[in-house]
Amino acid sequence: MTVVALREIAEQLGGEVIGDASRRIDRIGALDSATPSTIAFLANPKLRAQLPQSKAGCVIVGPADRDAAVARGTTLVTPDPYLYYARLTRWWVARGRPPAVAAIHPSAVIAPDAEVAPGASIGALAVIEAGASIGDGAEIGAHAVVGAGTRIGPGSRLAPRVTIAERCTIGARCIIHSGVVIGADGFGFAAADGRWERIEQLGAVRIGDDVEIGANTCIDRGALDDTVIADGVKLDNLIQIGHNVRIGEHTAMAGCVGIAGSAVIGAHCTIGGAAMILGHIVLGDHVHISGGTFVMHSISKPGHYTGVYPFDENKTWEKNAATLRQLHTLRERLRALEKNARGPSTP
Amino acid sequence: MTVVALREIAEQLGGEVIGDASRRIDRIGALDSATPSTIAFLANPKLRAQLPQSKAGCVIVGPADRDAAVARGTTLVTPDPYLYYARLTRWWVARGRPPAVAAIHPSAVIAPDAEVAPGASIGALAVIEAGASIGDGAEIGAHAVVGAGTRIGPGSRLAPRVTIAERCTIGARCIIHSGVVIGADGFGFAAADGRWERIEQLGAVRIGDDVEIGANTCIDRGALDDTVIADGVKLDNLIQIGHNVRIGEHTAMAGCVGIAGSAVIGAHCTIGGAAMILGHIVLGDHVHISGGTFVMHSISKPGHYTGVYPFDENKTWEKNAATLRQLHTLRERLRALEKNARGPSTP
Amino acid sequence: MTVVALREIAEQLGGEVIGDASRRIDRIGALDSATPSTIAFLANPKLRAQLPQSKAGCVIVGPADRDAAVARGTTLVTPDPYLYYARLTRWWVARGRPPAVAAIHPSAVIAPDAEVAPGASIGALAVIEAGASIGDGAEIGAHAVVGAGTRIGPGSRLAPRVTIAERCTIGARCIIHSGVVIGADGFGFAAADGRWERIEQLGAVRIGDDVEIGANTCIDRGALDDTVIADGVKLDNLIQIGHNVRIGEHTAMAGCVGIAGSAVIGAHCTIGGAAMILGHIVLGDHVHISGGTFVMHSISKPGHYTGVYPFDENKTWEKNAATLRQLHTLRERLRALEKNARGPSTP
Repeated sequence: MTVVALREIAEQLGGEVIGDASRRIDRIGALDSATPSTIAFLANPKLRAQLPQSKAGCVIVGPADRDAAVARGTTLVTPDPYLYYARLTRWWVARGRPPAVAAIHPSAVIAPDAEVAPGASIGALAVIEAGASIGDGAEIGAHAVVGAGTRIGPGSRLAPRVTIAERCTIGARCIIHSGVVIGADGFGFAAADGRWERIEQLGAVRIGDDVEIGANTCIDRGALDDTVIADGVKLDNLIQIGHNVRIGEHTAMAGCVGIAGSAVIGAHCTIGGAAMILGHIVLGDHVHISGGTFVMHSISKPGHYTGVYPFDENKTWEKNAATLRQLHTLRERLRALEKNARGPSTP
Repeated sequence: MTVVALREIAEQLGGEVIGDASRRIDRIGALDSATPSTIAFLANPKLRAQLPQSKAGCVIVGPADRDAAVARGTTLVTPDPYLYYARLTRWWVARGRPPAVAAIHPSAVIAPDAEVAPGASIGALAVIEAGASIGDGAEIGAHAVVGAGTRIGPGSRLAPRVTIAERCTIGARCIIHSGVVIGADGFGFAAADGRWERIEQLGAVRIGDDVEIGANTCIDRGALDDTVIADGVKLDNLIQIGHNVRIGEHTAMAGCVGIAGSAVIGAHCTIGGAAMILGHIVLGDHVHISGGTFVMHSISKPGHYTGVYPFDENKTWEKNAATLRQLHTLRERLRALEKNARGPSTP
Repeated sequence: MTVVALREIAEQLGGEVIGDASRRIDRIGALDSATPSTIAFLANPKLRAQLPQSKAGCVIVGPADRDAAVARGTTLVTPDPYLYYARLTRWWVARGRPPAVAAIHPSAVIAPDAEVAPGASIGALAVIEAGASIGDGAEIGAHAVVGAGTRIGPGSRLAPRVTIAERCTIGARCIIHSGVVIGADGFGFAAADGRWERIEQLGAVRIGDDVEIGANTCIDRGALDDTVIADGVKLDNLIQIGHNVRIGEHTAMAGCVGIAGSAVIGAHCTIGGAAMILGHIVLGDHVHISGGTFVMHSISKPGHYTGVYPFDENKTWEKNAATLRQLHTLRERLRALEKNARGPSTP
């Protein structure tokens, strides 16, 4: 178990400690479940009411909450408590983690001509195919498959059971979670006499640096050119990225999102859970799509867009939904009334 | 092939046999495709019309269908035919299954300090990491990965290719299907100057007893505390459970559901296919959500809730959807007409 | 790298070459990124404007674009350029692919009584269970699991890490992508005193010839009879097919679709991305469902059906969605106004 003095945290990550800097911290936790050896944080204003009663050994707060926090007990003040918390978790985990051992598990199956950098590690039963290259410090988890000619950048980490097909590129410091499939064939067929004729997918997938990809997410290879995920993109679990899609820098997508083929998503966008983007759509930079929204035409203007059916008790929904199916007719009737209201003599 | 006398079924599972109890049964089947050696059941009233013509050797019915069933032929009467059918399938499969052999496949990779109970079995090429423990009678399928320190309860069964990350807990008698990922990192980032900074996920996943989890479903580990799935929960395929989610006892969810981070779902709820629950939402006990519904605020009152756009022929949909985008304006126009109708002199 | 003379393409695949048939082609590409050694195609009328400036060595066009294409340079004329492109990719890939080596990787785990045809290949760490059979020319990827008694037809290809449970059947020339799970148990439970009792799934999955199944898609085994996917069906990634579903010939489904249990989908249907089909629904042949549509009742008439909430700027959506929850009341108010407009004396 990691145990540190509060002082040490502040020395490493900054922030002003007010109170007992020698206090020993053995856990990062939430305000309401904190113990005297827990460091907690207050970032969400909705949780302010929990501050006075928190038993935390120290609470990280922003300048606005300084006085209230100090009145409670030991406090660490920093401009952005949530960002501080993020950095604290990373420092904490890095500190507690045993030094990575660059090793190749004897059960891994590695093609003779694959290149594995001396500082890389390969897990049990992983398969590294012909001509693949694994960068320095990269970690390939158990049961991962790295296809022929695929390159994994330095410091990237594949969790157990990640599959990357042939000729793809993963940048540096990426984190790819279990079950991810990168480089499966895109969904391309030509119709011929009521049957579907397969189109071979000749492109690959190129993923930038510092990309994170959630469990069981799929990114298909391009039809002619590559599917491209730019630096800093964060994808949650069970997301589908179709062939030829391009996603701009630092865009984030929540779980269950689908991006159909050839869509182009700008930089610094956020796509809420289960939102769907139609094929060939273009979203500009800084476009934010609410969860559950189906985007069926392009959006160039930055902003926040939504299209979700409001839920209700089932009986109420039934009545409103039935009326919705006649909405256009209602408008016609309203128009007729308006015309009528203007008087019978109006031309 | 299992072949039993009808009498034996009734001795094991109860029910009143009317007719030929010595009839040999070799199959459980549907009314309309039954053969004289099939035992079928009538649970859905919509299938009543199939009863008279069914060629089944025996039909399981409730008291209300007793006379009609007896008029047809051999009958087994029981208060709840669907439950009887469920129990019959379990008895049938248990009877036909060869006795489980507690064995560790020689190709499995098991850490020296992992604990495997003597009655457990480990499939081909499975990986059991350091400090993991596998309970008595548990079955770990081929290609499964059980992470460091993770505990699998007695009698639980992991299908081939299940991945459970480190420090998670699976209760007793769980069934986890292929492709499931439990304990991948939750999706947590802090924004910093247009980039995303990773938040390490310090919690784990705790799963109770008698939980079933469908193929390719993902359950993320908690950010600070654990993600918790209570006893008796049933999850279908391709479901996403975000970090910190808590799901109450005996709640069931159909395929493609998404539960965003920190949502709390009560006990005895049902969530229909592809429904989505927003983060931090709280659903009380006995809340039933229709498939395809996006739940964006908490629900405390038990009941049935829906929010699905009614589909239509595309042309009709186009007209109604276009009008929907002006709905608020229509209401304003209606209000104006109403005001007008009250007469020009109304203040 | 494949390099061919344009003449050779036309000899193999047909089409009329106008211009320099000796031109050397080393790439199939898009009009706008083509080089003088690229063969491009014009199938989408929206891309017509790109034709005159394309640097392609040859452009494949239909008869209507013949003159414009010839004015630009070397041209290949064919009745259906998109279909020609599809066939060209297949010929191209087959030509460049090294001859398949029928081999069993020494790390594969194959049950003694499994049948592997002499012309089949088995990848690293694949598991072939008891009584399974692998047809001639079939390719089983690394980490694939083929369950007991399952049959893989001749020429079918399983990408790395495909899992097929016991007693299933895959036809000839199928392509199954990474992460697919076929034959997991369907989601079947009977309610008993507030708990769920498991129903064993006694059926299996039967898949026809020439079926393609995308990454991480799941197809559950039937409860009593089999789940059936007919010849020529194409399924994209992350699709959920529930138990007992039947899908007709040459139907195609885009990513993230869900088909709930016991639904019957006709032949020659298309289902757009993230559309959901409720359980027990029947869709006739030639029914086309738009992406994002939730189908909650059966459709017998061929046609195009849609049910998607139109998205908007969030503020506008908020106003319209709030009004939608009162839509039925609005209709009542409209009706009252209409009655009133007919005059106070109308009975």
